[in-house]
Amino acid sequence: MKTYLDCLPCFVEQALRAARIATNDEKLIKNVLNEVGCMIQETPMENTPAESGTRVYGKISKITGVADPYREIKQRHIAEAKALLPELETMVAASEDPLLTAIRLAIAGNVIDLGINKTFDLVSDIRKILSQDFALFDYDAFKKELAKAKTILYLGDNAGESVFDKLLIQQLHKPVKYAVRTQPIINDVTMKEAFDSGLDEVAELIDSGSPAPGIIMRYATPDFREIYQNAKLVISKGQGNYEGLSDEKRTIFFLLKAKCPVIANDLGVREGDIVLKGINL
Amino acid sequence: MKTYLDCLPCFVEQALRAARIATNDEKLIKNVLNEVGCMIQETPMENTPAESGTRVYGKISKITGVADPYREIKQRHIAEAKALLPELETMVAASEDPLLTAIRLAIAGNVIDLGINKTFDLVSDIRKILSQDFALFDYDAFKKELAKAKTILYLGDNAGESVFDKLLIQQLHKPVKYAVRTQPIINDVTMKEAFDSGLDEVAELIDSGSPAPGIIMRYATPDFREIYQNAKLVISKGQGNYEGLSDEKRTIFFLLKAKCPVIANDLGVREGDIVLKGINL
Repeated sequence: MKTYLDCLPCFVEQALRAARIATNDEKLIKNVLNEVGCMIQETPMENTPAESGTRVYGKISKITGVADPYREIKQRHIAEAKALLPELETMVAASEDPLLTAIRLAIAGNVIDLGINKTFDLVSDIRKILSQDFALFDYDAFKKELAKAKTILYLGDNAGESVFDKLLIQQLHKPVKYAVRTQPIINDVTMKEAFDSGLDEVAELIDSGSPAPGIIMRYATPDFREIYQNAKLVISKGQGNYEGLSDEKRTIFFLLKAKCPVIANDLGVREGDIVLKGINL
Repeated sequence: MKTYLDCLPCFVEQALRAARIATNDEKLIKNVLNEVGCMIQETPMENTPAESGTRVYGKISKITGVADPYREIKQRHIAEAKALLPELETMVAASEDPLLTAIRLAIAGNVIDLGINKTFDLVSDIRKILSQDFALFDYDAFKKELAKAKTILYLGDNAGESVFDKLLIQQLHKPVKYAVRTQPIINDVTMKEAFDSGLDEVAELIDSGSPAPGIIMRYATPDFREIYQNAKLVISKGQGNYEGLSDEKRTIFFLLKAKCPVIANDLGVREGDIVLKGINL
């Protein structure tokens, strides 16, 4: 997905929010905004927003000296999600269609997105998404591909959401490789948070190589690239991975909640909609 | 009022919205964002946001070649407000406290603010504000100053809102000078829109000299400065004038709806609150 004009003010807004998480020093925060503001002119509109996001958040870490401003927040979200897990596992097991319920919960977890200029309430958002209609719903195609697939590549998104991914992976009943960001970026899941979420119990954890808040193939490690090419089913969580991969030529299933107008518009849905969308089916 | 960190991303967002009103050319809009983004580093935080706003909107006019992007929108809002006027005049006349009802309506008109990243619905906003509690309510002091005042200076804000100002001026029963921006800036009222609103029927129209979306005294003409100093009562409408004048040393009554978190915070009220606040009482 390309960068839209609306992404540009959003980068500056994100920079302010993230810089405030990294530091209380107003002068440093102003410096961040000075530099991120000027970065707009160097932002090629043909790049994905996730790519520009990497530069924005890199600037914040450099100026504030805090490599991982969201470290504690990620841990808190993982703990909150884990506390809900037993109840959610029971809900999945008792449901008429456990796979679909697990998909819904995996999307519900996608509200834990701190790159978005919105707040969320995990418990009430889960309740809402459990009964929400899908705006795009390629579930039949997904089930068909899942039945055929011998190996599944699952692309993680946010820490905390990662705990909900575990629920879905348990319902896939296939070997899954779970890909994470190569370094801290916003509240995205890295190897550390994947372990902390207990994902190593249900999947093989792999480093995507992407330092961006989304998988971008030109950053991918050779290993990841090979796994990606050979995987029979690719499940991509969240907006950042959609930004990076929406123009790929292979079949990918995107699971996300459209949390900003730009992504909603690109998908042809409304803000707040939930989506299970397959490309190149 | 000084510039807050939150104002900086807001400038970029405003620039995008205004540039889109001025032109459909995505390249020109990107150029606007390039330059406004870089202006952040030249923005002194001790300046008022209205002052930086002047530079932002000046940049938009320069890059797009459109001196008054809101020209038609201003006319439409004036026409919409005028259509409501007979009904509102009846409402004021029939009310228990016509002055207070006219103050409420003048504040209701303040929702017509296109410098704000929000939409509004004039009719429903009026209805709400007519029964809304004031968060700050220096009405007794206002009435006392009004009773003593021989001359009143009324500082206009937005076109359309200006029609509602007429209702209030009619209830002041004193000679009123109504001050406007010296040139088009956002949807603020200039001499043209003051005439179009019929304000010349109830007040003497004067040019403030301020090109900013708020009265800033260092831009004021010598004539305006003299009127300002000699006026026994100054009524200031809207956020922009508050930004410019909140640190003044004379008594001023601010009438506004707090439409952004920064102004609300500076006033010590909540977003959405309505305010009749006197300073230096």
